[in-house]
Amino acid sequence: MSNIETSRRRFLIGAAAGAAVMAGEAVAAKPAADTPKFDKVYDIIVVGSGFAGLAAALEARLGGAEVLLIEKMPAFGGNSAINGGAFSVAGTPLQKKAGIKDSPKQMLADMIKSGRGLSHVPLLKMVVDGSLPAYEFTLRHGVKYKDFVQHFGGHSVPRTLQTVESTGGGITRPLTESCKQHGVDMHLRAKMEKFVRDESGRVIGLEVREGYLFPKETSGVMQTYGVRKGVIMATGGFSRNLWFRMQQDPNLDERLDSTNHLGATGEGLLSMLAIGGAPVQIDQIQLGPWCSPDERGFGLVSQFNTIAGFPMGIMVDVRNGRRFCNELADRKERTDAILGLMENGKPVYPVCFTDSKGVEKAQTLKNGLKYGVIKQFDKVEDLAKAYGIPADALVKQVAEWNEMVEKKDDTAFHRALDLAIKLDKPPFYACRVWPKVHYCMGGVGITAKAEVVDVMGKVMPGLYACGEVTGGTHGASRLGGCAIADGLVMGRVAADSALKAEAVKL
Amino acid sequence: MSNIETSRRRFLIGAAAGAAVMAGEAVAAKPAADTPKFDKVYDIIVVGSGFAGLAAALEARLGGAEVLLIEKMPAFGGNSAINGGAFSVAGTPLQKKAGIKDSPKQMLADMIKSGRGLSHVPLLKMVVDGSLPAYEFTLRHGVKYKDFVQHFGGHSVPRTLQTVESTGGGITRPLTESCKQHGVDMHLRAKMEKFVRDESGRVIGLEVREGYLFPKETSGVMQTYGVRKGVIMATGGFSRNLWFRMQQDPNLDERLDSTNHLGATGEGLLSMLAIGGAPVQIDQIQLGPWCSPDERGFGLVSQFNTIAGFPMGIMVDVRNGRRFCNELADRKERTDAILGLMENGKPVYPVCFTDSKGVEKAQTLKNGLKYGVIKQFDKVEDLAKAYGIPADALVKQVAEWNEMVEKKDDTAFHRALDLAIKLDKPPFYACRVWPKVHYCMGGVGITAKAEVVDVMGKVMPGLYACGEVTGGTHGASRLGGCAIADGLVMGRVAADSALKAEAVKL
Repeated sequence: MSNIETSRRRFLIGAAAGAAVMAGEAVAAKPAADTPKFDKVYDIIVVGSGFAGLAAALEARLGGAEVLLIEKMPAFGGNSAINGGAFSVAGTPLQKKAGIKDSPKQMLADMIKSGRGLSHVPLLKMVVDGSLPAYEFTLRHGVKYKDFVQHFGGHSVPRTLQTVESTGGGITRPLTESCKQHGVDMHLRAKMEKFVRDESGRVIGLEVREGYLFPKETSGVMQTYGVRKGVIMATGGFSRNLWFRMQQDPNLDERLDSTNHLGATGEGLLSMLAIGGAPVQIDQIQLGPWCSPDERGFGLVSQFNTIAGFPMGIMVDVRNGRRFCNELADRKERTDAILGLMENGKPVYPVCFTDSKGVEKAQTLKNGLKYGVIKQFDKVEDLAKAYGIPADALVKQVAEWNEMVEKKDDTAFHRALDLAIKLDKPPFYACRVWPKVHYCMGGVGITAKAEVVDVMGKVMPGLYACGEVTGGTHGASRLGGCAIADGLVMGRVAADSALKAEAVKL
Repeated sequence: MSNIETSRRRFLIGAAAGAAVMAGEAVAAKPAADTPKFDKVYDIIVVGSGFAGLAAALEARLGGAEVLLIEKMPAFGGNSAINGGAFSVAGTPLQKKAGIKDSPKQMLADMIKSGRGLSHVPLLKMVVDGSLPAYEFTLRHGVKYKDFVQHFGGHSVPRTLQTVESTGGGITRPLTESCKQHGVDMHLRAKMEKFVRDESGRVIGLEVREGYLFPKETSGVMQTYGVRKGVIMATGGFSRNLWFRMQQDPNLDERLDSTNHLGATGEGLLSMLAIGGAPVQIDQIQLGPWCSPDERGFGLVSQFNTIAGFPMGIMVDVRNGRRFCNELADRKERTDAILGLMENGKPVYPVCFTDSKGVEKAQTLKNGLKYGVIKQFDKVEDLAKAYGIPADALVKQVAEWNEMVEKKDDTAFHRALDLAIKLDKPPFYACRVWPKVHYCMGGVGITAKAEVVDVMGKVMPGLYACGEVTGGTHGASRLGGCAIADGLVMGRVAADSALKAEAVKL
C-alpha cells in the first residue's frame, strides 16, 4: 500500500463550516484542488471500536482487506466496554443444559413485541438469526462467558449470557487483541472529521484528526485517508449529546444522567445525516430502568438490579410500600412506570430489594455496599424506615409477594415467576432506582446489507453502518442483551458487504 | 430588479445526484463556474402555498420585500386547501358570545397534554399566543367563518372555528388573492429542485423547475433564482411518501390511505435534511381517526364525523355493539383504540352514528348519503343489522348512552358531555371508520424565529421553515384545528425573521 495516493479527478477540499450540498444541489465553494493527497489508502476504514466496529474490522481483515480502525477516545471499546456484558442469544448450549426451550423465532417475537410495531423486522431477523454464529465468533476469539443464562426483562425465557467479567469489556478486549494480531491498523485518539467523496458522491476517504484529545475539538493533526471499498460507521449513539437528544425528547434534559461513556456524543451519526443519510426513528431513545440516582453513569446498581434486584426481588413505591409494575417488563414499560412516580415534576425514587439468596450472583454488591449505593438491612421494617416507607404496608407487600411466588402467579402485574424467590432470608439488600438515558434505537437508515441509505431511499456508495448508530432494528424499545447481538451481527454483515464492493482506484 | 445577476465569487453548479457535502466536508465535484447566473433575484422566496406559505408570502410582501412564491402543483393551496377548514383559537368573540371561558394558557395546556411530553413548548406557546392575531389577520384578508365554535377532540372547551366553506380553501383562496393583489410573484407548477448556497453555506437561491407537471420529475425547464434575504420552506408533510413514512413507522404501509393530497411527498423536508437540517421527531406521524375505509383520501366522512358522528354520536365495535373509547379523546388515543380492533392483522371497522338532531350541522351528509359512505336507518335495530352488529347489544348500548347524557357522566370513558345529545330522534346516520395517515408532527428543527437549525444546532443562514414541514411543535399528537394556527402563525414569524435578515449582495 503506497503511503501517498493521488487522484486524477478534480477535488474540492475543506469547504467552510456549514457549507453543504445535497443531491444535485448547486453550491458555491472554495476553489477546487486537482489532486487530493491521501496520507494512506486502505480497503476498508472502520470508525468506532465498540462491538460493531471491532466485529466489522476483524471480519474485514479476516476477509483479506487492508483495514484501518479509528477510535477517538484514549482506549478501545467505546461504550461497549462499559456495558453489562449481557448477550442474548437464542438456542445456546447453556440453554439446552438448563432445559430451556428457545428458538430464533421466539426471540424474534419477543423483540417485535418490545419494538411496539416500529421494528424493521427484516433487520431484526438478521440480528436474531446471526446471534448464535456471532456468539460462536466471540468464542473463537477468546471471549469467556459465565456458565448460566439469565432472564432479562421482556424476554420470554432465560437466554442472556454474560461475560465472566460482567462487562462488555470481556468482549471488546479479546476482539481488540484479535484485531491487532490479525493486522488491523488500530489508531487510538483518531477522530473522524469529514467524509471525502468523489464527484459521483461515493465515499472514498476520511479526514481524520490524529492525536485527538477528547473533548478538545482542535487537538491533534489532520490526516487524509483514502478508502477503496468503503467506510463502516460504527460510532454508536448520542445519549451524551444533550442538545440533539432534547430535540428528540425535551424531557431528556440535563437532570437526566446517562449510563453511557462521555464519548457517546453522536457526531458519527450526525455526520451521516448531514450528508443526506436517512434519519430513522431518531426520537426513540431508551432509558435504562435499573439505574441509581445515587451514583453517576452506569454505576454499580445497574448490574446489581439486572442480576439480583429485579429478577430476584421486588421494587416498591416508597409512599405506600406497594409494587407498581412488572419488574421484568421490557425497559420502556418499566421506565414509563418509574417516571410515572413523579410528584409535581420531582422524582420520587422507588426502592428495589432482594434478600441474601437473591444477591448470590450480584458481583457489584460488595462495592455497592462500600460506596453506600446499596444498603443492607436485617429486617424489612428497618429497610422501610431507612427509605421512609410505611413499614406495615411493606411487610404486607412482602408477605403477598411470597404468597404469589408460592403459587407461581403474580396476580398484580403478571410477571413470569420461574426464577423468582420468596423474600424471607435476611439480610435484605436495597437500592434507590431512577432511569438514565441508555440507548438510541433510532439512527441512520440501512439496508439489510448494512449499506447506508439517503433520504430518498438510495444506497450511498462506499458508506456502511452498523450497531447503535443505525435506526429501525429495535423500534420503540430494545430488549436487554440485544445491543451486543446487533453490534456483532451487523458489524460482520457490514464488513461482508464492503468486502464485496467494487474497489475504486485511488 | 435585474433579470440576470452575477456574483464575483466562485461557484460550483450542478453536482451529480447523490453528491453531498457536510459542514467542513471535503468533496470532489465538477469544475467550478466563476459566475452563476440568476434568472431573477428576489428578497424572499417562499416554497409552498398552504397556510404557512401564503401567510409568509403575504407578511413578507406587506413588510416591503420583493417576494416570489412557488407552488409545484397546478393550483395554489397545497394540502391546506383540502383540509377541513377548522381553526382552533383561544379567546375569540364567538367563544365569548357562547359563554365559553378560554385562554391561551388553557389551550397551551391541552396541546401539551396531547403532545405527551414531546412538545417543544416554546414553539407551541408561540402558536397559541399567535392564534388570535392570526385569526384577525385572516379576517383582514377576507376569510369568513361560521357563527359558532365546535368542540374538537382533546380540547378542553369548544374553541374551533370553521370556514363557511368547511374547507381550508376558505382560507387559502382569499390569502392567494391577497398575495396577488399585493404583488407577490406567484408561480404555479414551479418545483424547487436545489438550494444554491455560497461558500459560507448561506442559502442564496434556488434552482426551480418551471412548468413542472406533477408527478413528471423531468418536466418543465430549469430556472435559477437568487434570494437576498432568505428562502422560507413551507412545503408540508410527507404523508404520501410511502418509503419515507414506512422507514419511520413500518405499519404505515400501502394498505393505509392518507387524507392528504397527492403532492404531500415531502421533498421539501428531505431537501433540508439532505443539506444537514436537524431531523426532529420525524417518526411522530398522526393518523386521522375520523376517516372512512369506504372512500379515498379525506373524503366526506371525515368532516361528517368531526362535526356530527363523534361529538354528537357514538362509535361502537361491530362485534359487540359496545363503545370502546372516548369519541372526543385526542387523535392519537382514538386512532390507537380503533387500530386495536384488528383481528389477525385485519381491520374490523367500527361504526359511528348519530341521529337526526346530531347531523344538523353536517354539510357533507347529503353527498355522503348519495355516494353511500353514510347510511340512513329508521331504527337502531336496522342499523345494527346492516353492519352485522348484535342488535340487542346495540340497543342496550344506546340506552346506556342516553342515560349517561342525561346524567352528564360518561362512566365508561369519561368523555366531556357538554355538547353530547341523546340518540333518540330517528332517522339515524352511520358510517364505517378507519384511520388514515393525516399529519406529520415531525420535521426539520427550527428556532423560535423559524430559522432552520442543522444537526449541530447551528442556524442555517438564509433558510427558514414553517408549518407542517417543521418538527417538535406538536410532539406526539397534534390537536385538531391546530395546523391552521401553526401554519399561519409561524408563516408570519418566518417572514418577519427573513425581513430582518441582512441582505446578501447578488
